[in-house]
Amino acid sequence: MEVITLERKVLAKNDEIAAENRRLFSDKKLLVVNLLSSPGAGKTSLLERTLENCRDRAKIGVVVGDIQTDNDARRIDIYQAPVVQIITSGSCHLDSKMVQSAVEKLNLDALDILIIENVGNLVCPTNFDLGEHYRVVVLSTAEGTDKPLKYPAMFHRADCVIINKIDLLPFTNFSVDEARTSISGLNSGAVIIETSCRTGEGIDIWCKWLFGKIIKQRVTA
Amino acid sequence: MEVITLERKVLAKNDEIAAENRRLFSDKKLLVVNLLSSPGAGKTSLLERTLENCRDRAKIGVVVGDIQTDNDARRIDIYQAPVVQIITSGSCHLDSKMVQSAVEKLNLDALDILIIENVGNLVCPTNFDLGEHYRVVVLSTAEGTDKPLKYPAMFHRADCVIINKIDLLPFTNFSVDEARTSISGLNSGAVIIETSCRTGEGIDIWCKWLFGKIIKQRVTA
Repeated sequence: MEVITLERKVLAKNDEIAAENRRLFSDKKLLVVNLLSSPGAGKTSLLERTLENCRDRAKIGVVVGDIQTDNDARRIDIYQAPVVQIITSGSCHLDSKMVQSAVEKLNLDALDILIIENVGNLVCPTNFDLGEHYRVVVLSTAEGTDKPLKYPAMFHRADCVIINKIDLLPFTNFSVDEARTSISGLNSGAVIIETSCRTGEGIDIWCKWLFGKIIKQRVTA
Repeated sequence: MEVITLERKVLAKNDEIAAENRRLFSDKKLLVVNLLSSPGAGKTSLLERTLENCRDRAKIGVVVGDIQTDNDARRIDIYQAPVVQIITSGSCHLDSKMVQSAVEKLNLDALDILIIENVGNLVCPTNFDLGEHYRVVVLSTAEGTDKPLKYPAMFHRADCVIINKIDLLPFTNFSVDEARTSISGLNSGAVIIETSCRTGEGIDIWCKWLFGKIIKQRVTA
């Protein structure tokens, strides 16, 4: 009982700061995406491909969350995108306060899109609103078709699901059709996009989705 | 501060029940393994291969933890091994109390080994002792070589690390040498075994490790 009450308090405080973040982002006409997945599904690779693909069309900033190491920030840095690394030192998810502190280090006026790469975890980040406008969940074909049904809350709240590593399809028993059916069953509003960050397949479609959201964001902001 | 104090209390209570579990398991001369990984690294496939390989040599029982669905228990059931599914309904890890309740449904006297498949999560299960004798962490080659350094606590406390899906090595940029170096750097005592649950490669070596521990367990129990 005590734990539940405390969790509610923590989440209420988180929601409050998330609302402040979202207000700030909307004032700046900045599209903000929370990128989520299991460890190793390909969030950083997707970021790399996105930066490569969109570099002439939009200014993208990145906030990267990791338990340890700044490897991901160093990978992003190569693309000369503004990047802030959050090292959570053990915490299994980002929260809105961490994001609030991180974005202070960025010149938001100079950005069109901010992508927040969450800690690799299909469970704990689910309840933590960061102030994003959209949630994108990456599912790798190597993880198995059953993951949406086993981690439903994560998929239930996604605006877009990326089925990544489709280059590995011939070597796994992953079924794209079955995964699409499960995801749509949990969340009929989720857009599903198939990609391979290795071959580049589908990256155009994903960037088109992202750009569509910038326009929408500018209209509604 | 409040959160930290509460977490300590929760962990202290967990450790207490874990110690009771371990005492029970040792009294029963039962080897207990806590099997951990990211979602989709191959814990259930490893269990299937283990049951297949060991069926004439040892009686293995299984406790499976999932956020939702009893898919894994149904997969194990095919091998006619005693299996109990724990559905955590949102909780991101198993705890010793859940295991205590689950094993009440098993005839421990009839078992040589109990394998507890934890929730797919490289972060949160780390601090929760279940009363196991050994921790085995499964890392899939599809997840990327950097995972041990990014999730160090999990690997730091492993007795054995399985590098699984080595059949995918030609199609990924995973480096077994680099992963071995990282794991050994974090934890020089961890045994590292390469497997493919798809081809069966390495399963013999893994089962040999497991059987070595039964013997040790019987001597020290």
